[in-house]
Amino acid sequence: MQIGFIGTGIMGTGIIKNFLRAGHVVTVYNRTPAHAQAVLDADAKWADSPRAVAAVSDVTFTMVGFPRDVEQVYFGSDGVLAGAKPGSTVVDMTTSQPVLAARIAQAAAKQSVRALDAPVSGGDVGAQKGTLTIMVGGDRSAYDQLQSLFSVIGQTVHYFGQAGNGQHAKMANQIMIAGTMTGLTEMLVYAKAAGLDLESVLATVGGGGGANWSLANYGPRILAGDYTPGFFVKHFVKDLRIALEEADRMGLDLPATKQAKALYQALLDAGHGDLGTQGLITSYPSWQK
Amino acid sequence: MQIGFIGTGIMGTGIIKNFLRAGHVVTVYNRTPAHAQAVLDADAKWADSPRAVAAVSDVTFTMVGFPRDVEQVYFGSDGVLAGAKPGSTVVDMTTSQPVLAARIAQAAAKQSVRALDAPVSGGDVGAQKGTLTIMVGGDRSAYDQLQSLFSVIGQTVHYFGQAGNGQHAKMANQIMIAGTMTGLTEMLVYAKAAGLDLESVLATVGGGGGANWSLANYGPRILAGDYTPGFFVKHFVKDLRIALEEADRMGLDLPATKQAKALYQALLDAGHGDLGTQGLITSYPSWQK
Repeated sequence: MQIGFIGTGIMGTGIIKNFLRAGHVVTVYNRTPAHAQAVLDADAKWADSPRAVAAVSDVTFTMVGFPRDVEQVYFGSDGVLAGAKPGSTVVDMTTSQPVLAARIAQAAAKQSVRALDAPVSGGDVGAQKGTLTIMVGGDRSAYDQLQSLFSVIGQTVHYFGQAGNGQHAKMANQIMIAGTMTGLTEMLVYAKAAGLDLESVLATVGGGGGANWSLANYGPRILAGDYTPGFFVKHFVKDLRIALEEADRMGLDLPATKQAKALYQALLDAGHGDLGTQGLITSYPSWQK
Repeated sequence: MQIGFIGTGIMGTGIIKNFLRAGHVVTVYNRTPAHAQAVLDADAKWADSPRAVAAVSDVTFTMVGFPRDVEQVYFGSDGVLAGAKPGSTVVDMTTSQPVLAARIAQAAAKQSVRALDAPVSGGDVGAQKGTLTIMVGGDRSAYDQLQSLFSVIGQTVHYFGQAGNGQHAKMANQIMIAGTMTGLTEMLVYAKAAGLDLESVLATVGGGGGANWSLANYGPRILAGDYTPGFFVKHFVKDLRIALEEADRMGLDLPATKQAKALYQALLDAGHGDLGTQGLITSYPSWQK
């Protein structure tokens, strides 16, 4: 199967390398060509536009930054839909708006192209190791057909129904993580101010009813002062913005998620969008002392 | 060793039974004597006041409801400190104010009694099974001497330093759980409104970076409409109130924890203090539809 992949960022690079290792031919495009060098060195082929990638691919994956990038990559004059062959499939792995996923699916269907939204969690490590969690919405037959491809790059793959539902599942995931990250952060801020031994706090809280993935993975990094990104603050703010816009559209008020978004937004506005999400703790004044 | 235990609620009852099973003599008191029947049937002895319990005990444990109860039980004319023998130890397992723990320790020291604050997590099941997490502050020699007793009732026991630090560690634990509970709640509210299959959402989110104890344990109960208390809303509000008062005293602003407290306070004010903490989701209007 001819695979296309648009977006060779940290995540895309890991995923593409796994496809290549599994023996697939992968044609790639990236807005900044230099950032594609790692996958070209691993024998990916280059094409000059999303349109050109889609024109030679049976399945075209996209993983770019923001919804506006997704829109450009799909609907632009040199976009994926301008090149996609009838009978081919397009898969957007960007975390993006459910409504945009539905628009892509509608437009694709008109030209006999099947579409999936398939955002992931698991970060750069998951992308490298092929252990991503993949949340899929869209055409069921396309999902069934691509299961073997998804299994190359993900450990847990779940189909959530109509176009956009993969994005909704990802939003649910991010809302959960907003809770674990703000809880972890304020827990450590409190414990430090109280003069507790923080490694003992992580061991104790992480061994009981407070146990969670963020504590286990980011807690030790925070104590080590390591704020390098597993997941960027700027992307988390984007995700929470989409989640809250969708919640609003559905008539939901989610005060805890709003509060988490406000805290991360302030961190972004202060110029720290390129920190990892565990960097939230640096915005609490007492932590720095 | 003669053990005294004041407070035969759900938690106390489980703990006392484990002491009895391990062969200890346990003398108990409870404000409502009828609630002590289960442990009396298991061969605990009765005394007519906290003072009378302490007078016959080498170690007196207390586990009551609110800080005002702790104050009464220790400092009342029929209280523990009025009866405690020189050389004995008192251990408050109530989740209570760090500053009150320090006051008890000071008053106890004046009469050659050693004091520990030792709040727990792990709930009724942990109390029954002897698998509690115990967070200890106070006299180090008393902690060392009582380790074998703690090991009868707890799986993880950690010493955090001076009097009040056990309470501080418990506050840190509750701040973490405020994050997991609000995140879990709003995640499910969102996912339901979006029309996702909620069991799939729990499996997917709980299998990745959003994994946490609250999701694994309370998620399925919420889907089953089971809001019976593992941990009471009214007690969680008390804990978060203490945590935020302490944070305020230390000059900390913890916005996410404040928001979580506000949500649980509203649930309590609406008359639902006797729900389990997973009942928070019932306060989101769309969940009921």
